[in-house]
Amino acid sequence: MIVEVINTGTELLLGDILNTNFQYLSKALNQKGFDVLYQTTVGDNETRLREVLKIAIARADIIVTTGGLGPTRGDITKEMVASALDLPLELDQETLEKINQFFIHRGICMPENNVKQAMIPQGAHILKNDAGTAPGLAVEADDKLIILLPGPPNEMKHVCTEQMLPFLEEHFAQQGIIHSKVLRLKGIGESTVAEKLDDIIMSQTNPTIAIYARSGEIIIRITAKSIDYAMAEAMIAEMEAEVRKRLEDNIYGVDNESLAKKLGEELLKRNSTISFAESCTGGLASSMLTDIPGSSEYLLGSVVSYSNEAKAKVINVSEDSLKKYGAVSEQVAREMAAGVRNLFSTTLGVGITGIAGPGGGSSEKPVGLVYMAIASEKGIVCQKHKFNGSRTDNKLRSVLAAFSLVFDKLNEEF
Amino acid sequence: MIVEVINTGTELLLGDILNTNFQYLSKALNQKGFDVLYQTTVGDNETRLREVLKIAIARADIIVTTGGLGPTRGDITKEMVASALDLPLELDQETLEKINQFFIHRGICMPENNVKQAMIPQGAHILKNDAGTAPGLAVEADDKLIILLPGPPNEMKHVCTEQMLPFLEEHFAQQGIIHSKVLRLKGIGESTVAEKLDDIIMSQTNPTIAIYARSGEIIIRITAKSIDYAMAEAMIAEMEAEVRKRLEDNIYGVDNESLAKKLGEELLKRNSTISFAESCTGGLASSMLTDIPGSSEYLLGSVVSYSNEAKAKVINVSEDSLKKYGAVSEQVAREMAAGVRNLFSTTLGVGITGIAGPGGGSSEKPVGLVYMAIASEKGIVCQKHKFNGSRTDNKLRSVLAAFSLVFDKLNEEF
Repeated sequence: MIVEVINTGTELLLGDILNTNFQYLSKALNQKGFDVLYQTTVGDNETRLREVLKIAIARADIIVTTGGLGPTRGDITKEMVASALDLPLELDQETLEKINQFFIHRGICMPENNVKQAMIPQGAHILKNDAGTAPGLAVEADDKLIILLPGPPNEMKHVCTEQMLPFLEEHFAQQGIIHSKVLRLKGIGESTVAEKLDDIIMSQTNPTIAIYARSGEIIIRITAKSIDYAMAEAMIAEMEAEVRKRLEDNIYGVDNESLAKKLGEELLKRNSTISFAESCTGGLASSMLTDIPGSSEYLLGSVVSYSNEAKAKVINVSEDSLKKYGAVSEQVAREMAAGVRNLFSTTLGVGITGIAGPGGGSSEKPVGLVYMAIASEKGIVCQKHKFNGSRTDNKLRSVLAAFSLVFDKLNEEF
Repeated sequence: MIVEVINTGTELLLGDILNTNFQYLSKALNQKGFDVLYQTTVGDNETRLREVLKIAIARADIIVTTGGLGPTRGDITKEMVASALDLPLELDQETLEKINQFFIHRGICMPENNVKQAMIPQGAHILKNDAGTAPGLAVEADDKLIILLPGPPNEMKHVCTEQMLPFLEEHFAQQGIIHSKVLRLKGIGESTVAEKLDDIIMSQTNPTIAIYARSGEIIIRITAKSIDYAMAEAMIAEMEAEVRKRLEDNIYGVDNESLAKKLGEELLKRNSTISFAESCTGGLASSMLTDIPGSSEYLLGSVVSYSNEAKAKVINVSEDSLKKYGAVSEQVAREMAAGVRNLFSTTLGVGITGIAGPGGGSSEKPVGLVYMAIASEKGIVCQKHKFNGSRTDNKLRSVLAAFSLVFDKLNEEF
């Protein structure tokens, strides 16, 4: 089954936004055994979109579009697909009702424009969109299947995963599958991982193995191609065992398990609670941990102690230490950890203080210098790091390093 | 001049790598007045690449390819372009010498494979590549211009900026320039904006106007095409004035000014300081504001008061209110705002409490219900919102709504 992905949107052609939708879709489709052989970007222009659809219908079996399903006049994908397939658009009452509810929930009247989003090509199958108002659609005609997905990445991903992929699996006999597993690492750099796996990487065939650096983390992806899922899993398991032998201490999770999620699980398992005193990370550690549903079970509270006064008054860092060692120092990190643990009466207290940059550095205390301390009933440990990134990079890396430290500490202590 | 960009590479179609080359190229070309109207991705496959080139030659004046200029057998772009234009490949001695020097400099012998990189279509203009071994090429035939750029982003960018753009400027009389401006909105939905601008959108020609939803925000882009920058600016200014008439209260900034950045500027300008008591947003408001360099000037501190105990103990929310109204209530939001303002002695205190989901909702207090309050010396204001998204969406939308509220408050009060 040959697939073409068509991404619509003038903002893509102007270079205003980066097309991340295509990578997500091509990965998802390839993993299910569909061959993505073409991808086209075209603007919200009737003539050109119609022409691009015509070419795609001629050369591909499945066409997946993103974008152009919104309520504005510029949104024309559905109209052009209906016109290319010679299908009338009909009002879908159920979709209209759903859109209406969306606005009622927000306490506002549905604008008249949004009725457009409930018009669907005759006979189309609706791919529900719980993340927005525009539903996805699957339209069949002349042995071709055209799937329309919304453009905003969060909505596109949602409809792709929850609706499109199951629909395709049902619609087509299994094409042979590609299955992969991600191993997630902490506390190690990309080149060290590469060195440790050098011989495996050199001799790889099927499964394949690849190392990526992503959002401050290192991940290893093992990908197997096989006739069925069970066979692919067995092939992956064999290679995974070999990798784990060499990197056991650094692998903290698999697939979509973020370090925050995994840390939450470890805390829950041990009935432990945590609190953060954040200086240079400015609330990011707490925010990342509270992205995890149910985190209120273990994160009782945090303090963003940006100013020295906040450090002294709220979490009881001594004025002397601030004066003698400075706000970015091991001593202050230790007092922040102990202070916040005490304030919220948590099992663990974490203190993070550093210089995120771009300003505020000196030769003695350069941008990227970060101290992080963890206080528990056993005492306080502290780590010093030096990061090289931008302000937001340094914040992220500090948080991941702090999570990693807490993770190790939990596994040592309890 | 219509441009099509063709990105070649099987790794793009597998979703292994993100295509960042296209955004860079389209931005650069648009800025020089070239209309990028199509972009195609295709793998390193002779039949399909030849077909894609044929379609591009038919519909565009200038075709820019990236990738497939390397020394391996899989690199076939140059060969396919030469074949499509019926031109023989010839050895270019100067290029061969340059490649040779590259390897001598690295202290290794030039592999035989690399001779392939010195073969160029007859009559092609060489676009020197000081960042790697594969030079770019510009080939003219039948009124069409085909430009071949290397695939690795650093080499592509180098050849694009240093060689391709000057070549294009020299080759073509100036095509006029495209200039655009982004207006950023708060406190309004996409379809309401569309309704208010409907007649402008319907009658647009040049400048054009478009509405986008991006990361929880609505933006309006006005794009003008003109002979020079000053003329384009004047055209945009006229349309902007018309848009501002209808949406003045909702436009908070332009181009890359984020709401957090703009809020920071407003606080600085007024010598005001701020603190947050965050419940459902879990530190995200503080983290987004501290992403802005220099934010320590106005953000003195924050409390993530996730548990009821934290609310009561650290920011002095009354146990009675928590019992009587519940943690997610207007009353508690107000007390959080006042309490945190008092704790950090800031000009403004912001309290945010709600149900981010996916659990924790009830019919009376559904997921997405959020109260946000702002305390100042003048008193306390509170807003109630209902959001529809995922947990992380609801966090983000809550933060943006809170920033928006603070923004309005600052402009009213001071």
